[in-house]
Amino acid sequence: MSKYRTISKPTLLIDKKKVLANIDFMLQKARKHRVDLQPHFKTHQSLEIGQLMLECGITKITVSSIQMAKKFAEQGYTEISVAFPLNRLEIDDINDLSQKTALNLTVLSTDAVDFLDQNLTQPVGIIMKIDTGYHRTGLHPNDSTIEKIIKTVQRSKNMKIHSFMAHTGHNYQAENSDIIIKNHNKTIEILDGLKAKYGLKYSTGDTPGCTLADNFGKADIIRPGNFVYYDLMQNRLSVCDLNKIAVSVACPVVAKHPDRNEIIIYGGAVHFSKEYIENSDDTKLYGQVISSGENSLDSPEPFLSKLSQEHGTLKCSDKFISEVSEGDIIKITPVHSCLTANLLGSDFLIY
Amino acid sequence: MSKYRTISKPTLLIDKKKVLANIDFMLQKARKHRVDLQPHFKTHQSLEIGQLMLECGITKITVSSIQMAKKFAEQGYTEISVAFPLNRLEIDDINDLSQKTALNLTVLSTDAVDFLDQNLTQPVGIIMKIDTGYHRTGLHPNDSTIEKIIKTVQRSKNMKIHSFMAHTGHNYQAENSDIIIKNHNKTIEILDGLKAKYGLKYSTGDTPGCTLADNFGKADIIRPGNFVYYDLMQNRLSVCDLNKIAVSVACPVVAKHPDRNEIIIYGGAVHFSKEYIENSDDTKLYGQVISSGENSLDSPEPFLSKLSQEHGTLKCSDKFISEVSEGDIIKITPVHSCLTANLLGSDFLIY
Repeated sequence: MSKYRTISKPTLLIDKKKVLANIDFMLQKARKHRVDLQPHFKTHQSLEIGQLMLECGITKITVSSIQMAKKFAEQGYTEISVAFPLNRLEIDDINDLSQKTALNLTVLSTDAVDFLDQNLTQPVGIIMKIDTGYHRTGLHPNDSTIEKIIKTVQRSKNMKIHSFMAHTGHNYQAENSDIIIKNHNKTIEILDGLKAKYGLKYSTGDTPGCTLADNFGKADIIRPGNFVYYDLMQNRLSVCDLNKIAVSVACPVVAKHPDRNEIIIYGGAVHFSKEYIENSDDTKLYGQVISSGENSLDSPEPFLSKLSQEHGTLKCSDKFISEVSEGDIIKITPVHSCLTANLLGSDFLIY
Repeated sequence: MSKYRTISKPTLLIDKKKVLANIDFMLQKARKHRVDLQPHFKTHQSLEIGQLMLECGITKITVSSIQMAKKFAEQGYTEISVAFPLNRLEIDDINDLSQKTALNLTVLSTDAVDFLDQNLTQPVGIIMKIDTGYHRTGLHPNDSTIEKIIKTVQRSKNMKIHSFMAHTGHNYQAENSDIIIKNHNKTIEILDGLKAKYGLKYSTGDTPGCTLADNFGKADIIRPGNFVYYDLMQNRLSVCDLNKIAVSVACPVVAKHPDRNEIIIYGGAVHFSKEYIENSDDTKLYGQVISSGENSLDSPEPFLSKLSQEHGTLKCSDKFISEVSEGDIIKITPVHSCLTANLLGSDFLIY
């Protein structure tokens, strides 16, 4: 593990080859289906990955906060869509930012566009968020608010309609890939209908749907984010093989408890997040050692069974524990790469 | 809500009066039981709270990482115990830090003290972690390793035995306060036994035990951390009344869905963490609006029922939703203040 010699605390390891292969896969898919890939940057939030994307020819992106939009506008991205309902309290930042990049904001009420109409000092694009079944937020496809928003935008000085957008987030609760495809197709059907009715562009964007589906209807843009890294949750959904996962967390071993087949690592909830996958026996899995690269989580690989703030408990075999010493580094694949990357911030290593 | 006028994104609100009252409560308790309060700083990780503690006369503290120890050594704390098993990969930082403050390190193997014996360049104190029933990590009270560690330390140039330490972490799974007291008393009994046998000091430190118990045996030091803020989890354990909780998160309202009694706030897993409490109907609660200050979570107060990366879904009554507008700020009490404070970092407001 000589390449980890400089690591002394929990560190996100980013496999550049896998990242580039994941980006290439999604770019090829976008080209094949004649849609524009405007990847969601909430997964990595990283200027280094941003640079790789720029080098791949990507110039338009998606983010989930004004802060993220600021960061990547400064990096040179020329069009940024904020895929999060308008937070009017950030209007000063919005007006500042829209001078620096082509900014698209997400709205789902007449109240929001009325506010923007009165408070924008620079032009922005308007995205209407549509609820296609996730029921987190968004307008019902038949909601008369859509026409009201369009009318307000049309007579506004600084707003221009950009597109409809939907996120098939219920794909993360899908029991199998057939359901992911079915949910995805429903989203496409709804957005195709809105496109025909209003003559506007649309985007869709969850990683499960964008990875597995082969029907993008009349979509103009796709906005997946997680695909750049993938993670155990995507593998569990049959979205990616384990060998496509481009990130792991390097964690120092700090204690061994062979009597109960447990190793304590420096790596806890403040590094991995408390996102978990349920094992078949109802226990929780917060991360796993993937040594074989094979596409199965049923093998007896060591897994994180408990997390407290900085401690992680790794359940492992007699053999594994006998080969590990205090001070070794163990690579653990995270359940949810977005939350893990967010927590590890500047503690990362690209190799 | 004029005092929140400067807030535009999720922000930790810290009620200074309540923090001071919580510190005062624990200081009084420590004085009554003739133990030294060396609070755990992993909960707040804040120089501002560190300053309040210094002003209360606290000079010795507990942390869970070398990074935290560095930060508070620079603030002027004169003795810092790292209540986390030795991470030998940080030996350079350890040697640097031990020049600046009296540093105590936690060990639970002969391997760890052998390493320190060979690699320390400055004196440090040695704490032996004892497992009193939590079974996360620590030495069994009868483990012969204890004597071996003591012998190695005694003949070492730069090590000096500091104390035994235990964390009754299983109190966080306790079903009621009687079990908390029982677990706490068991810890005290075990550590009293070790003190009698080896003539060494000891510390204990979970917030539930330190708040509720009135038997501290022959303890020398207590190290609770969470008490400075408390949170919903402590309330659920009957450790604190809701009006003792000193933190909440100010979150902008970004969408309303009255048809399903939901409000979408800017405030998600990257602000609250995914720590949850199970409601009696098996649904999850990630945070709650506490408007009444009454000591009950059974009232129909709005609660966070779902979190994604930046979105939070607040379940609420018709009345509540009718009184709220997009752009309002809602104060939500977190389930686990340690993880929330860690995530919100520099986004806080003390009032």
